[in-house]
Parts: sequence; structure tokens; C-alpha cells
Amino acid sequence: MSGAGSVLIAGASEVVTGDATLGRGDLGLIPDGAVVVEGDRIAWVGPASEAPEADRRVDVGGRTVIPGFVDSHSHLVFAGDRAREFTARMAGERYDGGGIGVSVAATRAASDDELRALVAGRIAEIRAGGTTTVEIKSGYGLSVADEERSLRIAREFTEETTFLGAHVVPQALLEERDAYLDLVTGPMLAACAPHARWIDVFCEPHSAHAFTEAESRRVLEAGRAAGLGLRVHGNQLGPGPGVRLAVELEAASVDHCTYLTDDDIDALAGAADTTVATLLPGVEFSTRSPYPDARRLLDAGVSLALASDCNPGTCYTSSMAFVIALAVREMGLTVAEALLAATAGSAMSLRRNDIGIISTGRRADLTVVDAPSHEHLAYRPGMALARVLDLIERAPSG
Amino acid sequence: MSGAGSVLIAGASEVVTGDATLGRGDLGLIPDGAVVVEGDRIAWVGPASEAPEADRRVDVGGRTVIPGFVDSHSHLVFAGDRAREFTARMAGERYDGGGIGVSVAATRAASDDELRALVAGRIAEIRAGGTTTVEIKSGYGLSVADEERSLRIAREFTEETTFLGAHVVPQALLEERDAYLDLVTGPMLAACAPHARWIDVFCEPHSAHAFTEAESRRVLEAGRAAGLGLRVHGNQLGPGPGVRLAVELEAASVDHCTYLTDDDIDALAGAADTTVATLLPGVEFSTRSPYPDARRLLDAGVSLALASDCNPGTCYTSSMAFVIALAVREMGLTVAEALLAATAGSAMSLRRNDIGIISTGRRADLTVVDAPSHEHLAYRPGMALARVLDLIERAPSG
Repeated sequence: MSGAGSVLIAGASEVVTGDATLGRGDLGLIPDGAVVVEGDRIAWVGPASEAPEADRRVDVGGRTVIPGFVDSHSHLVFAGDRAREFTARMAGERYDGGGIGVSVAATRAASDDELRALVAGRIAEIRAGGTTTVEIKSGYGLSVADEERSLRIAREFTEETTFLGAHVVPQALLEERDAYLDLVTGPMLAACAPHARWIDVFCEPHSAHAFTEAESRRVLEAGRAAGLGLRVHGNQLGPGPGVRLAVELEAASVDHCTYLTDDDIDALAGAADTTVATLLPGVEFSTRSPYPDARRLLDAGVSLALASDCNPGTCYTSSMAFVIALAVREMGLTVAEALLAATAGSAMSLRRNDIGIISTGRRADLTVVDAPSHEHLAYRPGMALARVLDLIERAPSG
Repeated sequence: MSGAGSVLIAGASEVVTGDATLGRGDLGLIPDGAVVVEGDRIAWVGPASEAPEADRRVDVGGRTVIPGFVDSHSHLVFAGDRAREFTARMAGERYDGGGIGVSVAATRAASDDELRALVAGRIAEIRAGGTTTVEIKSGYGLSVADEERSLRIAREFTEETTFLGAHVVPQALLEERDAYLDLVTGPMLAACAPHARWIDVFCEPHSAHAFTEAESRRVLEAGRAAGLGLRVHGNQLGPGPGVRLAVELEAASVDHCTYLTDDDIDALAGAADTTVATLLPGVEFSTRSPYPDARRLLDAGVSLALASDCNPGTCYTSSMAFVIALAVREMGLTVAEALLAATAGSAMSLRRNDIGIISTGRRADLTVVDAPSHEHLAYRPGMALARVLDLIERAPSG
């Protein structure tokens, strides 16, 4: 069943709306709050004492209700296992197990059904962790057919699909970069654009496998001409042109932002209505890199998002609660700021005004935190507290 | 039902035994391993191809089997919520919400049933995270009746109970420390000893609420005279006498070890057969303290354990997988070393030779990791991969 009448979500210790006009502070927090859902939309949110009648009632038992997490950066379409590479990196060992090439080879070798099952398993984990919207990038295909297939499968699970043929230059084509760029911006883009909403590029002068500013510009402009929105992997391995290029081209998001100059921060602050800085602290955790100073970005007026970057090489976690705990421990954000960045901020980075906030008319994407306040998301790191509130499964109650 | 015949645990991608004589490396890893359980004991472990017949079969579907985590340090018996104190600390704000006094007041005010329900909820979380043995300390009662009650309730959930009346000197008795010590070592100890296996003390010259070396010695010697084993909170807030006192008195464990001198490390290495250094990296995470150098301790020959220190003030997580991920990221351990410290190491710190390792005759305390290798415990931080294998619930299968 679905959408059979209205549902009152009751018994919440607090509802974090994410809309400051609806409750206390920037979180728009409503103590003893309630939400009414009709179909797939929020029909009402406010204090439980003022809640309207509804056809049925779901009691969350004193838990906290928050907007479903929006994970605006992931690479879920891959096969193969790179745990040993992680182990070697943590041990400080040199290890040439093949890196991203391992994922590309395994992804190409997998059948459609195998790849679909792998993505489905990761999506199940993601929902079990409280995330209701996830962006998925291609980028482990690196051929026309394999990139197209990755996006086709990703599209079965989300509308937020991103063509990332420009993830790396394949090893075999390192001496023929222009030929690969011709492919990415030509036939590969043509094959992939129908399955994608976004295009992305790994703009990174510190890696020979990644793309220079000029190459990145070429990829992004081709994507824009094909009707795709723009995203950029920028400033991950060192200072570079990624942030400035993203701002110049009015990309929706520039992701990583691990190494920023003062000029980069000024540019992002000036573009706060257009380009979101998406921080991915799980990457810094899993690669032992320095964390970016999110506090400074926020104080400068930059629009911030948090996302997982779930991928097999540099960050194989999709827990947004863990990402929030890291942002608080390591990047100077309050729990409230981190939670906003993981919901409303990520929604903005996807240019979505129908998710990320609990307000009338938005999608009923609700997550329950098994705790009396949202603060427990960071206060209880590593605990599995957040889960998506599934109103359909819980249907035949009170 | 329980113990109805033998059970073959099959379909494991690997079995981590923790006994180097049983498999590869220090982990005693058996690829494609199997385990046979009879009643509550392990009857056999080895390669699946050599597994004996059993009365029934449980297939773990390509997952990893490890010894159940042993969490040798927790403070689970408390009421009240201190999330706001955590939030303020992370924001660098001064906050005098009452600290541990909040937990003491709320714990005293709770009914037996309320306290029991809170502990039961935390135990359920702990098992859901793959821990099969947990030590529980008192220390939020700080009166004869309230300490006795805490231990009586803790004993309902575990045999590993620890009397920690010497957690802090209660605020009201700060000027009468000797009177409180008389209480702790006299009537309180007499009331608590029947419910406790261990005694512990917060030996810490850097806090006026904690105990000096002489006071700690008095507490530990009284506990020993009452038949209790010895544990010490030592060297948490700065260098101090805790480690040396623990070694001198042959305590089973000295916990925290955040600030160690060269002499402390030498002392621990010399006592490696007796006194385990138990590291609690969740505390360093949640208090933004420096992490101890576990690598150096291990290289010096110190016996290491990892535990959660789950408590409402400085570390409200009980996820041993998260603790392992921190030990790898922040303290220089390999995943294998961290996993051994969280199982066999913690078992040693409890002087238990019936848990922590998967070998014939030990308890059938098995945990399943939803991954093809144990490395995923650190490779996938924040993910809920580990769960206790409950053979009773899974009974009526093939």
C-alpha cells in the first residue's frame, strides 16, 4: 500500500526541520514535534500539541525525527575488493595492487545482474543508515559501453546520477590523453547523457591520472552543452584550480576541498548561492589526510554540504552519521551545523528544493534517530542510530 | 532450545581464530574456514573441506567469522542524558552542566526497573555490534546502597562486574576525602564485593575528584583483601603513577594509558604476562585528546587490549568495530593487531581463557562480519557490519 490517507508521526522527542522559520535556531528544532504525511509529501509539521487529525498514527517512541540524509557524492557502481590496499596504506606500506584499475577491471568483468546486486546491497546499507537520497557516479567503466551501463544501473536506484568518465585517464591511454578526452566528451558523453543528470571531473594537477584545468573545463563545457549540470572533484590532493573553475562555471558543487587557499575560500563565499563546497571527511579518515577547516568555511559564508564519497579506494563507508561525527570531531562544526550540511546543504548541492528539509510540500523523506536528541549522532560515534522511517512497511498500525 | 546436538558454521569466507597455531599469521586466519559448536562450546575449527559431520548447519553466506568482541571496560549502569555537555565540549565552550554529578543524581533517582531497562537497552546495542562479553563498572552510585544496586543490576547481565566506588570523590565530600575512602574501603566494599569480580580506581593526580597514588593503593589493597581482582584507570589526563601502581600490584589491566613515559612502557613490557594495557580510543575521539601510540607499545612487547569505555561523559559509544577503526587510523595498529587486541587481548585483561579465541573447548562466542574479510572492520568505518551469531535463534535451518 502507499499514500492511503494521511499519517501522523507522533511521539518524537524533537523534530529537526532544517527550516529556521519553523522552530528553534538554525536547525528549526521543534521539541515534542510532530509531522503529518500525505502520500509522499509532508502535509504539516509543528508541535505535537497542535497536530491536526490524520487517518493513522505512527509513534516513534521518544526518538528524534530529522530530514533523511542526502548523500550527494558516492561511487556505488563497482565490483571487486580493495580491502588489502586499505590495509597496506594504513600500515604505511608501499602497495601496488593496481588501485582504481582493480575496480575498473572487476566492474567491466561483472555481469549486469552482478553489478545490480552489488549496488542494491549498498543501497540497502545506505537506507539502513538513514539516507533517503543518494547521488551515484559512474567512473569505474571508462569505456563507452561500461560507463553507459554503470549509469543505466545507477539510474535504477536514484535520479541523481553523475557521468564521471573523467574519473581518471585509463592507464593504457596515459600517453594519449587527448584521445581519451575526445572519447569522454564525444561518444561516451552521448551514450551516457540520457542516463545522467550531472557531469563531474577529477580536476587535480597533483595526479597524472587526473585532469588539468584545461582538460576539466573541456569536459564540463561538453557536459553542459549536453544538458547536464556540473560537479567538480577539486583540491583533494593539494591546492589547485578545481574550486575556481567550479565557481567560474557555476557548478552546483565542488567536492573534497581538502586544500584551499584564501582565494579559494573567497571565491566560494562569493558563490554561496550557486556553488556548494561539499566536504567528504570519510576520505580524510580513510587516507589519513588532513581535514579541511569547515569552521573557517562556514564563518566565511561558504555554503557547505557533507557527503560520504562511498567508494572502494579511498573511503568505503556510506554512514552519514559517521561523517557527521567526523565533521564535529575533526572539522570544527557543531552537531547542528554538521546535520544541516548533511541534509539541507547536500540538497542544495543537488539543486533540490524538495528534499533536505521537513516543511510542508517537501518529500516525506524522514529519518528516525534512536536517541532523545539529534546531538547523539555525534555524541555516539559508530553507533547505528539512524534509520529511514518507512511509512509503507509500518502501515497497518494504530 | 539450546545445545541440541552439534552445529556446523559453514560458508565463511574466512575464520579468524586468534590462535596462530590454527591458521595463518598472528590472527590464525583460516580461509574458507568452518566451526563446529556443541552446546555452548567450540568442538572443532578448521578448513571447511575437513569439517566433520554435524547435526545441523548454519551458512553465513560468504561472510567473515571472528571471535566475539570482548569489551573489557564499560560504565553501562547510569541514567540521565549528557549530550549537551558533549556538544559544548566539541564547540570549545565552557559548560558546567554538572558533569559526572548529573549521571550520579539521575542514577540515584532512577528506580531499579528503570535502571535495568537502560542497561538492557545498552546490552542489546552491544550485542547488535558483535560484542559477546562486556565488563560493567559501577561508579555512578557513590553511596553504599547505590553502588550495591548498580552492581546487582550489572550482575544480571554479565559476570564481569567491577566495583568502582572510587570513580570520583563526590562533590559534597571533596573536603572529607578520607571519610569517603573509609566508606569505599569499608561498608561500600563489603556491600559490593558479593556482586563484583573486580575492583577499580580512577588514579589520576590531574583531577581533584580522582585519587592519588596512596589513595589508589589503599582502595586496591582493600579490594584484594576482599577477594576482588584489580583494575586501574591510569594515565588518562596526564603522566602519573597509575601504570606503575598497576604493575606493582599485578593488576589485570591498566586502562586509558593516554600519557605514558618511557619508564611506564618499560614497566608494562616487563609485566606483559600479568598486566594488560587497555586502550580506549573512543575516549580520545570524544574528548579531542591525543591518541596513545599503540604501535610503540606493541613494539615494546606490551600486552594490549582495546575496549569501548562506553560511558555518558567522555565516550558514549560501545561499537568495538569503531574502536578498531580508530586504533588503525590513529594509533598505528594494523587491522589484525587491533582485532586481536579487541578479542584475545581483552580476554587476557579479564584473565579469561575461555573466550576471545576460536579454539576447541572455548565458549562458542562467535561474531559474523558482513564482509569477505576482517579488514573491512576498519576499511568500512562507521558501518554496522558485525553482529553476534545467535545459534539459538537460527536453530531450525538446514
